[in-house]
Amino acid sequence: METIKTIPEMKQWSERARGSHRTIGFVPTMGSLHEGHMSLVQKSVSTCDVTVASIFINPSQFGKNEDLDTYPRNLEGDRRLLETAGVDVLFLPSPQDMYPEGYKTFVTVEGITGHLCGQSRPGFFRGIATVVVKLFNIVRPHTGFFGDKDWQQAAVVETLLRDLNIDATIKRMPIVRDADGLAKSSRNLYLSKDEMTPARSLSRALELARHQVQNGQFSAERIRREIRQLIEKNKAAHIDYISICDPDSFIEQDEIKDESLIALAVHIGKTRLIDNCIVRREKCKE
Amino acid sequence: METIKTIPEMKQWSERARGSHRTIGFVPTMGSLHEGHMSLVQKSVSTCDVTVASIFINPSQFGKNEDLDTYPRNLEGDRRLLETAGVDVLFLPSPQDMYPEGYKTFVTVEGITGHLCGQSRPGFFRGIATVVVKLFNIVRPHTGFFGDKDWQQAAVVETLLRDLNIDATIKRMPIVRDADGLAKSSRNLYLSKDEMTPARSLSRALELARHQVQNGQFSAERIRREIRQLIEKNKAAHIDYISICDPDSFIEQDEIKDESLIALAVHIGKTRLIDNCIVRREKCKE
Repeated sequence: METIKTIPEMKQWSERARGSHRTIGFVPTMGSLHEGHMSLVQKSVSTCDVTVASIFINPSQFGKNEDLDTYPRNLEGDRRLLETAGVDVLFLPSPQDMYPEGYKTFVTVEGITGHLCGQSRPGFFRGIATVVVKLFNIVRPHTGFFGDKDWQQAAVVETLLRDLNIDATIKRMPIVRDADGLAKSSRNLYLSKDEMTPARSLSRALELARHQVQNGQFSAERIRREIRQLIEKNKAAHIDYISICDPDSFIEQDEIKDESLIALAVHIGKTRLIDNCIVRREKCKE
Repeated sequence: METIKTIPEMKQWSERARGSHRTIGFVPTMGSLHEGHMSLVQKSVSTCDVTVASIFINPSQFGKNEDLDTYPRNLEGDRRLLETAGVDVLFLPSPQDMYPEGYKTFVTVEGITGHLCGQSRPGFFRGIATVVVKLFNIVRPHTGFFGDKDWQQAAVVETLLRDLNIDATIKRMPIVRDADGLAKSSRNLYLSKDEMTPARSLSRALELARHQVQNGQFSAERIRREIRQLIEKNKAAHIDYISICDPDSFIEQDEIKDESLIALAVHIGKTRLIDNCIVRREKCKE
């Protein structure tokens, strides 16, 4: 596995790969890799000629009081995982090269970023959209791989690629969970032993909601109330949002439709966790 | 000259040109071509292997009360000019293809767009930046050609290409003027016979300012006052701004520096005209 640290070298590598008609798969990450990331890497390695993974803790997507400084870092561990998985290039740009002094240009996606995490974290999706455009212009992948845990992020990326006529598609992969259902996240490393039970309440609440829908409960208000009750049994849990919404527009729904997204963001102590699932009304009619 | 009307066909053409290692020159226009545009086309034809010119009246850069509907159109005349000049492809995308229903993504350049035309025309540079990113992603030029009349626009484009890591450079070309000094502009077609004299006051005011600097007048306030007096002798002229500023940051200057931009925007009746020149303090010391 080659490690590339500068933007011109990365561009040159991609130009050569494209010139020799190899398809480039790209997995952009902030490092501290877990099984969720690795499912993206494996999909890329198995479906594209060459795979580039990037590790870049993108300052422009963190708010002022968020965890940019403490975000977990594990470069040597990450490197071993990527090498073993068959990644061709690890791209490690520096914040100074990505956002040099005098940096001025930002990409915004309107509408869909006004909901869920876009509402809780102002500037978050602007940071995501901007860094994705930059990374895609540098790496020039044919396919980018994104996880469904960050469902809204994947939707934002799909939208901007289409709108800005960027020649790449994205492949979304399902959420990876531990044996107890907790969605894999780099931020799980923040959780103390006492916080594991409250952290698991997110996936348990989604499981409960799914059962309710299967049993014919379609009222978003009632499902939301059940989710709230289950999560708030844990004193360490503070709900940011419980959303039952359209999975493309993120507009809230009064009742479960043919396809609805149930998305949660919950603070467990100082750690903000997200999780989601899709529920379908018609499946329950079977 | 080939005419291409769809985005996928344009992308395919560019992919082929790049694949055969031909350099692509690109002249994005809103049509109604004049000698200013043609100087860009000629430069592209003479310095690049192939030249693409686009005609697209970009709705996203017009304000609500601006002249989108009446903006001059002259497709047949434009086509003849481009063909004669040796352009390889005329790209004519439709507004529906460029901004389909559900379009959501915009590019903004901060700081430098808070001055001059960015202040007078809110949303203007967001529209410019967005369409330039889209057109550059579709046409994939090695070099884009822009005129100095739209000095701030060229600076915005240079900034976003660098910031978003888009692999293209831009070449700026000097303002083309008629025999009386009036800067060539598609909007000159709006001017009535009676408005020609007031319209010419922009370039005459810049000429006056240049003479003053040459004679050692470095006070921005005094130069601005002289410009205002000259232009306001014409009843049809209403000044939008007179700026004496840094040519890169567009921050106003109290006095002429080693390099200063003098930029004007003036309404002549219903027609808004802009013009500018660079003045240099050190030249006056010679």
